[in-house]
Amino acid sequence: MRALVYDGKSLFLRDDYPRPVPPSGEALVRVRLAGICNTDLEIARGYMGFRGVLGHEFVGTVEECSVGNEARSAVESRLIGQRVVGEINAYCGECPTCRAGRITHCPNRTTLGIWGRDGAFAEYLTLPLRNLHLVPDDVPDEVAVFTEPLAAALEILEQVHLRPTDRVVVLGDGKLGLLVAQVLALVGSDLAVVGRHREKLDILARRGIPTALESEAEGMSADVVVECTGRPEGFAAARRILRPRGTLVLKSTYHGQVEADLTGLVVDEITLVGSRCGPFPPALRLLQRGMVDVRPLIGAVYPLTRGVEAFARAAEPGALKVLLQVG
Amino acid sequence: MRALVYDGKSLFLRDDYPRPVPPSGEALVRVRLAGICNTDLEIARGYMGFRGVLGHEFVGTVEECSVGNEARSAVESRLIGQRVVGEINAYCGECPTCRAGRITHCPNRTTLGIWGRDGAFAEYLTLPLRNLHLVPDDVPDEVAVFTEPLAAALEILEQVHLRPTDRVVVLGDGKLGLLVAQVLALVGSDLAVVGRHREKLDILARRGIPTALESEAEGMSADVVVECTGRPEGFAAARRILRPRGTLVLKSTYHGQVEADLTGLVVDEITLVGSRCGPFPPALRLLQRGMVDVRPLIGAVYPLTRGVEAFARAAEPGALKVLLQVG
Repeated sequence: MRALVYDGKSLFLRDDYPRPVPPSGEALVRVRLAGICNTDLEIARGYMGFRGVLGHEFVGTVEECSVGNEARSAVESRLIGQRVVGEINAYCGECPTCRAGRITHCPNRTTLGIWGRDGAFAEYLTLPLRNLHLVPDDVPDEVAVFTEPLAAALEILEQVHLRPTDRVVVLGDGKLGLLVAQVLALVGSDLAVVGRHREKLDILARRGIPTALESEAEGMSADVVVECTGRPEGFAAARRILRPRGTLVLKSTYHGQVEADLTGLVVDEITLVGSRCGPFPPALRLLQRGMVDVRPLIGAVYPLTRGVEAFARAAEPGALKVLLQVG
Repeated sequence: MRALVYDGKSLFLRDDYPRPVPPSGEALVRVRLAGICNTDLEIARGYMGFRGVLGHEFVGTVEECSVGNEARSAVESRLIGQRVVGEINAYCGECPTCRAGRITHCPNRTTLGIWGRDGAFAEYLTLPLRNLHLVPDDVPDEVAVFTEPLAAALEILEQVHLRPTDRVVVLGDGKLGLLVAQVLALVGSDLAVVGRHREKLDILARRGIPTALESEAEGMSADVVVECTGRPEGFAAARRILRPRGTLVLKSTYHGQVEADLTGLVVDEITLVGSRCGPFPPALRLLQRGMVDVRPLIGAVYPLTRGVEAFARAAEPGALKVLLQVG
């Protein structure tokens, strides 16, 4: 099959990549549409030490399920031929972490296109059946493909009690920042988004969300700051805005460490909350109800065959979401 | 008056330091006994850029109150001649931070012996009346002098919901670590303390608190880790023990920044909580009820006249609390 592969040095298209065979409990999914995320760009720079097929944001069609005979008919009638999105962490379900309900942190997990498991920039992928969620008929592919990053944005509301009276600043107008801002705006908080690209901020401004360029952020103060810049400097920038005893939500992942003022966190009694993957069902509900508008976030759609070019486009400063049309 | 002064370069005893005059709303307190804290050692190395009389842990006697005539008799009968301990942050009470109840974070604050206000290693200090707390008669000076650091330990319980079923590790067997451990043990959590000094850990072991040397901490895992090592390396050590989605409480303050893996906080969805000054009334209650045993934490008592020597002793590896007898 066709697949976009990273071999530890470069990213290239292969036509002869072996089609995956779903192990027991997993489904074979034919990928329809996939999205390029900043994490993919970081992985293609060496983050996580991953080798294989990249990609973890997708919508696809279930072609085959590997289940025991007794379960086959039930699963097949529910899933085969259906459009699905998939949670990216394949967990063991048996370790203490899983049994405590923290399945996305299972120490035995593999993660689609990120850790130990080939990803979605290919004609086929496999994922455990329990990771799949049906896409409602009225949610088209180009909307459903945002389920995974929207779930990651919703993870903030899973972790932090955001009050309608809170002053909230989202730092970063990248792909994730634009989703995070729309999610946090739902709660009615006093929200502002600080970014670098007027045209991207305008997507939010058109929805009534206050925005500012970094140069205009001087003197801002917030109860909660969400750091989505994707850059190490974002941490210090967030701290300058955050009030004492405020909450700093970290969403950025990048290669390398940061010189951080941890003593400052103690003196100002800051709460830092690292935030990663989130819940799919509420993400699908928000997409179906049209509460989050993802279409303006699409910057370009490339066929998988032009995947390398698509990556270059996604890496340009100010790029919006680049999608890969696969099926 | 006699005072132990840091001038930005060195620490020395002065006999001719001007006795402070309490401004309106403040009390003149004759210091009886004071404690040397790690923060004092850091300040004497340049932390905070402080110059003046060091010291913020004390018990003293109120000698004079500067209040309007109408309030004088009430305040005098309540305070003059009484033994008190004092909260160290003198706040304005009028800014938005104070009005929001976050008085220890008032941007206009001065802090006893730390920031903009002479401290307790002197015959006299001044503090606002509202910062003072009466010491119960049955709490002797050498116990009461621990109120401030014990309050700082209690701040953890103000900020974090510690469950009796949580696995908790306190990193560091320094002066603060030994208090933090005793406070967290009150909740009944599955607690262990990791340190470097067998003889200090034994103080806790004798109270039934499990302890381990750093070399024995391999393979530990905790829901909550409290970092009290006072060293930059403590952060990475705490992360190795903390489970995903765990809570890392930071208590250490030191000069300088730390190379930190912030992306790791995102991937493991860690909550970091910076924790500083805490509430005095519960600290006094615990001391009065004998729920925390501070006497074994006293390593030495020096007269103020030998304050420089006392600092050297307090800076020795493995030192317990060094007290300065002033009055």
